[in-house]
Amino acid sequence: MERLPKYIQCSQGTLWLTEDERDHLKISYRIKDILFEETSPYQHVMVLDSYDFGPMLVLDGVVQTTSIDGHIYNEMIAHVPLSIHPHPRRVLIIGGGDCGVAGEAAKYSEIERIDLVEIDETVVRASRRYLPEIAGNACDPRICFHYQDGVKFAAQARDAYDVIIVDSSDPVGPARQLFEPGFYRSLYEALNEGGLMVCQSQSPIFHAEVMTQSYARIGRLFPHRRLYTATVPTYPGGLWSFTIGSKRALPAPEQIRFDKPARYASGEIVRRCFALPAFLREMLEKDGAAL
Amino acid sequence: MERLPKYIQCSQGTLWLTEDERDHLKISYRIKDILFEETSPYQHVMVLDSYDFGPMLVLDGVVQTTSIDGHIYNEMIAHVPLSIHPHPRRVLIIGGGDCGVAGEAAKYSEIERIDLVEIDETVVRASRRYLPEIAGNACDPRICFHYQDGVKFAAQARDAYDVIIVDSSDPVGPARQLFEPGFYRSLYEALNEGGLMVCQSQSPIFHAEVMTQSYARIGRLFPHRRLYTATVPTYPGGLWSFTIGSKRALPAPEQIRFDKPARYASGEIVRRCFALPAFLREMLEKDGAAL
Repeated sequence: MERLPKYIQCSQGTLWLTEDERDHLKISYRIKDILFEETSPYQHVMVLDSYDFGPMLVLDGVVQTTSIDGHIYNEMIAHVPLSIHPHPRRVLIIGGGDCGVAGEAAKYSEIERIDLVEIDETVVRASRRYLPEIAGNACDPRICFHYQDGVKFAAQARDAYDVIIVDSSDPVGPARQLFEPGFYRSLYEALNEGGLMVCQSQSPIFHAEVMTQSYARIGRLFPHRRLYTATVPTYPGGLWSFTIGSKRALPAPEQIRFDKPARYASGEIVRRCFALPAFLREMLEKDGAAL
Repeated sequence: MERLPKYIQCSQGTLWLTEDERDHLKISYRIKDILFEETSPYQHVMVLDSYDFGPMLVLDGVVQTTSIDGHIYNEMIAHVPLSIHPHPRRVLIIGGGDCGVAGEAAKYSEIERIDLVEIDETVVRASRRYLPEIAGNACDPRICFHYQDGVKFAAQARDAYDVIIVDSSDPVGPARQLFEPGFYRSLYEALNEGGLMVCQSQSPIFHAEVMTQSYARIGRLFPHRRLYTATVPTYPGGLWSFTIGSKRALPAPEQIRFDKPARYASGEIVRRCFALPAFLREMLEKDGAAL
């Protein structure tokens, strides 16, 4: 390679990716190889083979998912809502260009159609080619790819979905819209009777405001909501939150059943992810919010 | 300050601590101030005030605990065994010089004596002075400080303790002994009838071998054992494991009661920390180990 991509530094013969989108914390990953690099109309896209995390997807210099732990996030954002809905047939995924969430959804034989709406085709292409541990199941014929703006796509759908999964990046730049009240309203209207949605709602430790705001906004629209957590090693803080908004009453956690093959999720994990740390429960209660 | 301590770099007028004990991953923390620095007979000890994590304890350039999340680890290693034992009266803590675990143990009024065995008095002094969020409760008169080698201290104790908590650092250098069969045997003998011990057993993702080895070694000595996890944001991988070895039969998780004031732990969290991710359950089962 003649010139190194931006975001990559060479130090003493070794390649490093340094994430420096945060002011006070920098993380550097040692890189074996640059597997993919392209500047799409939306962002700079790389797949880097790292020593500690295997191949990983990097957008605008920030690690999005890695082969070693990406399945944790994907399984937890997919299987919790899909286990709660008694018969999910039509599923919408907003974002999720790494195809991991779609692959998890494809494990449900009762699902007839999975619409995956990702604005950036480059991300899908790079992930399918270079991140097989994440995107492996993406060849399932029930997955329909739409390379469009998720906000516009959702705004046009009516009574169409049983489950909507919002697999967004952090609320900066264009992804900010995916945390706005108008977007949640579109999701509400895109769900059919008894439908439910889930979104990643950031770290309870480092983005507590975003999390409680999402939780409050979802609560103003949906009659039922519930927050759960999972440990996502490569995300800041490790502890990550997800928020469900539902038109149907949610079952008690003990009643949730899950029997798909998975690496992180299990029946026990899916039932117990709703047990919240004391500080988090307090934070939501203070927000005037019944759990 | 005339000269910067080793481990601290100044870049464009800003101080940074860069952890570089790992070959393939480097984490840099932006620092407001160096609150404490001393080279003890055992190690280089600092307390640094960081932007993202508040004051943090740094030994030989590696972050050990921080004001923002240190309580998660301390609560989870202390309250799970102390909630399981029906009437803990004498408690031994090996390591734990930041005093956080001792402070959590001091919340149990039935405990009569807490022996804290930390080899490095400097760590205790620095933590009590500059990490009040962690060491706040360390003034409890039931805590007896012993500035000695934990391995030797444990080897001399017989039938003396209800609960032993091994709050060790990573198994490199002197702490390696705290993961050896001989040390576990000392703990077994230091416990009275019905006693139980817990140790931090590293990351299931990044140190799976250390974890399964500890689990196997504890299983060869103790008739009952159980592994649990918690999310510890500043440790690599976020997901962290703890292993209990017990002379008494362990209660079903549902039967454990916990009612102390805490920031992370709650009854629900203490009962549900035993729900293991699928890959972790498999890993332990493959090891020929009943859970």
